[in-house]
Amino acid sequence: MTAASPPPSPWQASVLTLFPEMFPGPLGQSLAGRALREGRWGLDAIDIRGFATDRHRSVDDTPCGGGAGMVLRPDVVDAACAAALAAGPDRPLVVLTPRGVPLDQRMVRGFAEGPGVVLLCGRFEGIDQRVIEARGMLEVSIGDYVLSGGEPAALVLLDACVRLLPGVMGAAASGEEESFSAGLLEYPHYTRPTQWNGLAVPPVLLSGNHAEVARWRREQAEMLTRTRRPDLWARHGSATPHALDGQVNAA
Amino acid sequence: MTAASPPPSPWQASVLTLFPEMFPGPLGQSLAGRALREGRWGLDAIDIRGFATDRHRSVDDTPCGGGAGMVLRPDVVDAACAAALAAGPDRPLVVLTPRGVPLDQRMVRGFAEGPGVVLLCGRFEGIDQRVIEARGMLEVSIGDYVLSGGEPAALVLLDACVRLLPGVMGAAASGEEESFSAGLLEYPHYTRPTQWNGLAVPPVLLSGNHAEVARWRREQAEMLTRTRRPDLWARHGSATPHALDGQVNAA
Repeated sequence: MTAASPPPSPWQASVLTLFPEMFPGPLGQSLAGRALREGRWGLDAIDIRGFATDRHRSVDDTPCGGGAGMVLRPDVVDAACAAALAAGPDRPLVVLTPRGVPLDQRMVRGFAEGPGVVLLCGRFEGIDQRVIEARGMLEVSIGDYVLSGGEPAALVLLDACVRLLPGVMGAAASGEEESFSAGLLEYPHYTRPTQWNGLAVPPVLLSGNHAEVARWRREQAEMLTRTRRPDLWARHGSATPHALDGQVNAA
Repeated sequence: MTAASPPPSPWQASVLTLFPEMFPGPLGQSLAGRALREGRWGLDAIDIRGFATDRHRSVDDTPCGGGAGMVLRPDVVDAACAAALAAGPDRPLVVLTPRGVPLDQRMVRGFAEGPGVVLLCGRFEGIDQRVIEARGMLEVSIGDYVLSGGEPAALVLLDACVRLLPGVMGAAASGEEESFSAGLLEYPHYTRPTQWNGLAVPPVLLSGNHAEVARWRREQAEMLTRTRRPDLWARHGSATPHALDGQVNAA
């Protein structure tokens, strides 16, 4: 009766899958789960098998040209997409596949700022390419590894989006994200006890000197990015050339 | 009574988390779930909160040096790691964090070939760096985006590993993986109906000429990788220089 009133039209995720029982899964817990119950976002998992037209409810067939595995049929997938989009036609249609464009935080922010997403989860060997192209799907990869299907990737994409929705997380979220937005890996964290197991928290963090703390964190983030992710560092460096000289302005 | 006998010492995953109820989650379904029930791998989710020592069961504290969010305490995390490792001390201790080394299929294969993994899921702002270093944890990132915690990343890592374990998937898996192993994105797939919505399957795939099919798939994989993932293509090209000339040997 007195629950916080949800936004007028909450962010809506539809997932097309052969395993609808995998959803909401972990997204039913913690912050995402609370936000789901509060109506800050919506989730419907749609069973692709419901759009099969033959009496065996078959959704896949062998690959043209031969090879292992099975491929999802274009007609069945197309019908499932049409049903999902009917409930929110302005949402991007995303297929999760290792062939896709790598997901990054900027893409996540774009999804979170829109009306929602429709996610298609592949299984078996893959999905008929004609329906991917005919529907203008956005092919997205969460990383350079092979999963048993798109479902774990869909959970990851949704988790990343939902935490950015209004009212889902507090101020804690924004700082963490800004670190990535700046194109750097995050500096190391420390908390109490300040002495543990013979190991001390770096003294600068206990100094109370905010400018020195900011400088130290920036240096740590830069050093970590340079040594661990030269790819990120190269992109960061070209955007802000002074950082390459190690010249850091404390905030 | 007559179930297939499991291997003598199955692959064992332990997950350290504040949300043990998120596991097995989607891994309890489909192929991973069946393999779990058959004893081909094991999973225990360990609640970090069980290792708090004060009467409030607190596991985190504010970051030294200030800032938003909360940081997991080193003493609590250390005790949780000790408990997990007691049940299988030879397993790598992995912490899932966007600061980590990017997960790729080679790393997945390494984990799958070992005795199992211990996965530490961060929440809040992060984990005290001293325990990460004292325990020699491997910091791993599943991608350049921010999640609400390490749990969705742990599900992804485990899904990728489990599908490679003996007996979990059939021949379908191996072919798919080889594509990534070669450093190329996968070629497009097609299946019946061969005419759909005015769109035809590429005729070569219906030709019955295996050499031509293999050549077409290879060219498609190379073109896709070159245009969509120049980073992968550069690494692939340096490993097999002839591919850069477009000279392809059909298998």
